[in-house]
Amino acid sequence: MTETESVLTSKELAESVLQDNSTDYSNSPDTHQRRRRWRIPKPGMGIWLDLHDRLPLYGKDWTDAWDYRVIPSVIETYFNNLLPALAFAQDMFDRTDNAYGVNEVLLSSAMAGIVFGVMSGQPLCIVGVTGPVSIFNYTVYDIIKPLNTDYFGFMFWVCIWSMIFHFIMAITNLVGLLQYVTTFPCDIFGFFINVVYIQKGIQILILQFNNDNAPDADNNASGFASIVVALLMLIFGLIFKQFTRTPLLNHTIRTFISDYSTALSVLFWSAFTHFGGRLNDIHFEKLPITKSFFPTSQTMRDPTTWLAYHSIPARDVFIALPFGIILTILFYFDHNVSSLMAQRYQYKLTKPSSFHYDFLLLGVTTGIAGVLGIPAPNGLIPQAPLHTESLLVHDVDGSVIKCVEQRFTNTVQGVMMLGTMTRPFLVCLHQIPQAVLSGLFFIMGISGLMGNVIVSRIIWLFTDSTRKNLSDPLNNIRTRSLVIFLCFSLAGFVGEFAITNTIAAIGFPLILLLTVIVCFIFPRIFTKEELEILDPHVAQRFTIKNLLMENLCGHHTKADDSQMGTVDF
Amino acid sequence: MTETESVLTSKELAESVLQDNSTDYSNSPDTHQRRRRWRIPKPGMGIWLDLHDRLPLYGKDWTDAWDYRVIPSVIETYFNNLLPALAFAQDMFDRTDNAYGVNEVLLSSAMAGIVFGVMSGQPLCIVGVTGPVSIFNYTVYDIIKPLNTDYFGFMFWVCIWSMIFHFIMAITNLVGLLQYVTTFPCDIFGFFINVVYIQKGIQILILQFNNDNAPDADNNASGFASIVVALLMLIFGLIFKQFTRTPLLNHTIRTFISDYSTALSVLFWSAFTHFGGRLNDIHFEKLPITKSFFPTSQTMRDPTTWLAYHSIPARDVFIALPFGIILTILFYFDHNVSSLMAQRYQYKLTKPSSFHYDFLLLGVTTGIAGVLGIPAPNGLIPQAPLHTESLLVHDVDGSVIKCVEQRFTNTVQGVMMLGTMTRPFLVCLHQIPQAVLSGLFFIMGISGLMGNVIVSRIIWLFTDSTRKNLSDPLNNIRTRSLVIFLCFSLAGFVGEFAITNTIAAIGFPLILLLTVIVCFIFPRIFTKEELEILDPHVAQRFTIKNLLMENLCGHHTKADDSQMGTVDF
Repeated sequence: MTETESVLTSKELAESVLQDNSTDYSNSPDTHQRRRRWRIPKPGMGIWLDLHDRLPLYGKDWTDAWDYRVIPSVIETYFNNLLPALAFAQDMFDRTDNAYGVNEVLLSSAMAGIVFGVMSGQPLCIVGVTGPVSIFNYTVYDIIKPLNTDYFGFMFWVCIWSMIFHFIMAITNLVGLLQYVTTFPCDIFGFFINVVYIQKGIQILILQFNNDNAPDADNNASGFASIVVALLMLIFGLIFKQFTRTPLLNHTIRTFISDYSTALSVLFWSAFTHFGGRLNDIHFEKLPITKSFFPTSQTMRDPTTWLAYHSIPARDVFIALPFGIILTILFYFDHNVSSLMAQRYQYKLTKPSSFHYDFLLLGVTTGIAGVLGIPAPNGLIPQAPLHTESLLVHDVDGSVIKCVEQRFTNTVQGVMMLGTMTRPFLVCLHQIPQAVLSGLFFIMGISGLMGNVIVSRIIWLFTDSTRKNLSDPLNNIRTRSLVIFLCFSLAGFVGEFAITNTIAAIGFPLILLLTVIVCFIFPRIFTKEELEILDPHVAQRFTIKNLLMENLCGHHTKADDSQMGTVDF
Repeated sequence: MTETESVLTSKELAESVLQDNSTDYSNSPDTHQRRRRWRIPKPGMGIWLDLHDRLPLYGKDWTDAWDYRVIPSVIETYFNNLLPALAFAQDMFDRTDNAYGVNEVLLSSAMAGIVFGVMSGQPLCIVGVTGPVSIFNYTVYDIIKPLNTDYFGFMFWVCIWSMIFHFIMAITNLVGLLQYVTTFPCDIFGFFINVVYIQKGIQILILQFNNDNAPDADNNASGFASIVVALLMLIFGLIFKQFTRTPLLNHTIRTFISDYSTALSVLFWSAFTHFGGRLNDIHFEKLPITKSFFPTSQTMRDPTTWLAYHSIPARDVFIALPFGIILTILFYFDHNVSSLMAQRYQYKLTKPSSFHYDFLLLGVTTGIAGVLGIPAPNGLIPQAPLHTESLLVHDVDGSVIKCVEQRFTNTVQGVMMLGTMTRPFLVCLHQIPQAVLSGLFFIMGISGLMGNVIVSRIIWLFTDSTRKNLSDPLNNIRTRSLVIFLCFSLAGFVGEFAITNTIAAIGFPLILLLTVIVCFIFPRIFTKEELEILDPHVAQRFTIKNLLMENLCGHHTKADDSQMGTVDF
């Protein structure tokens, strides 16, 4: 059990750092705290606490779904989940010699939606296929290709290893370390993912210049025509997507336009390619689809069954192990942060969170994904928080009254994903030109960057001092500190982005881990007040109740509404 | 003298309307005013007053040019004048079977710059080739083609007639009617011109699909590639052009970026077409140039001489007369409003204006344009006000201290236009792809629309009432009044735009005149307070001193700094 030991050691290290941290904050460490420092919570304690809190509410989660909000929420969540998933399907299709396609991505989303909708402790967190998993999958493909081993067999073992590590982390309460995560790595990760989206959009457009189905001479025409479609979609999509930033119409209509703009953009610009004129001369490559309910790949696996497990040499089983660790690190971070973001204190949730048990469940879905040969699903940013927002009930002034916390929306959008796998829906999806998927990537990436805190801090730095918003907390930060902090942020981004563009791309979750760890040196560089603004904790006390050491070690306290950090993502 | 008589009648009509108007405002017309109502100022009185005020300052206008501001002003004005002129040259080249080209447009700008720089009463007003004149020229071409008459001979007579009407209007003091012009027709005209710019940009792009120099199969490629270049140029050009709206950097740098962004955009995106990759496969059609200092057309006129006068049948000389009237109406409006806008009260000009004499001079340049067979120049919006702005001296707080009023900048930019006609510069211009000119039209059109008051009023109408700026004067307007006023504005625009897209395009100055006249019914629909906000007078008392009836009729008062309307264009 070397693995567990080393993990425990790193946990202890983190705990001792916490101790330093709390010393730093309170300046009066008492003996009681010092004694508790080395206490280790019982294995399975976190899972037990989660189930203890949440299980009694499972029935109520279904009766609570009797509310009008769930109807628009299901529709919005379905499209928010489907459209980026299609873009990732296209990306993986292109980069894995068609190992993955639309069917795999839909099946993964459906499985995740149903499993997490019905069984998870926090069914508000939408789970599906993410950009990082797409990168992970095709990078493994690139690495595995020269080894002449079966790709799906290898991915099976990666997922199985990852499932085992998920179980270990859930049982040993390692999910509790989440409480020390600050926004610094989240902001970098968000920045990185959005830049990657823009890069993916560009890559899809480049592929349009090498269109096998168009005659040679027309390749340039279809390439440039695709850029035109993507740019026009970007311009109009972004204007509508950012409509909530304008003072036009009223709040409800602004939100409506912003929410549905992406789905309508895909519809409109797909139709646009049929508007006639010179567009009729162009062959627009479409989103590739295959036989309904069957795997995409005809050559790399048995196309008649979803059971993708093939035996691979024992050597390769162990080569799969480090990949499993990397996938686990990625999911540990990405899934839990998605879940935290879906449970911001502004949403006024009343049902408890469930991080340990849900991470266990994520291990299960990862294992299932390995068996079926589909991309492993995990928590989706920004879909998870958007899902919670779509369930909020507001009063006339626009303040949040409550959130319709239930299992119906997540489950039903999963079932709808399964329905999308039927032939008629696949044929509809096949009408989507790849150029539109590229535009979708651009809209997602640029919208994301516009909302990213690193971008807004860079803008702040270059803002005319006479025009700065005086109520902005950044006014309390020394310029020197802000510049240094931004350098750390950008260095983290450059590290992640650079590594994904090399053969070592697979290592990007390690850089991600590094950005989590580097935060522990911040108290030596910045003042406490500065860090509270620049790098607050991601989680708030109520949400992470079951992550806290005193609870895990038996001092189970009542729900506490005070938040540790009031950061707004 | 039927012409003069009818003109006098309309003047009397306008005067009586003014009388009604002033009755409406003061409610106490005295007998003195009533008696003065029918007095007619002496012919040439306006010109005499202008020269009387301005001639003594002609020498000082040269010595005052010894100021640093003139250097950036000359550079900025040159590019502001050159670039749209090139876009118009391309447009006329395409639509008149190459009757006009870059050489004609440059010669016209050079002639106008030098004549108005050296001789005009108000040398701040930049004169050159405008969009409306381009439309006028090619519409005349469309109409004249079936008549089998010589186009340049016909245009010679159009210009000569127009010159005569300019002289008549200047001598009979009809320029004085300008004082009754309100912002309503100016706003419509601005809206119309900017929409036409966008339309021109689209038309140039459509032509790229019918590229004679590219093989058939590549026409689509060069068409779509041109759209890509134009769209990218638009996106980045607009961001930089609107940089003064952001709070970034400081005022000086924002203004610098905004001012030079267009010239740098043309440079960058022209270079972009040589960046390699797939762009190398594309044949980008360039701005066509011909032999330096010689006329463009090789077939329609003697290409060895600028004297374009050919005899045409006497019948056609009289057909040219109504066209001359229309050109005069256009110039009366367009030139004088440009001049007014270059002399806003915010600019704190101290040297007197000169509308009557300058309109006489415009008649001369129109005549010269007819003789040389080049487009007739007139006052440029927005280049004229931008020129004045570039000459302002600010204090540290950004307030205007003074304006460097002189003849150097206008004259020198005219000489530079002449220099641009030399072979090396023409070769540089020939590097500009037509797609870039299209992007230039888009940037001009969309920037113009963003600053147009009709657009901002429509936006106001759709603004969330809780987010409206409480200090905006529009708060004092009833919504019903605003909607009715906007309907008038949009009806005026639709009229102008619709007519330019028919064979009757030539009539658009008549619609323009109609929009000037329709203002006289506004006091019956809107309250005085509403009209002061919605439709203020264009001119202010100091600027239009020599337009006022009491001055023209002999009661020559001292310069009066109070303004009639405080409208900011």
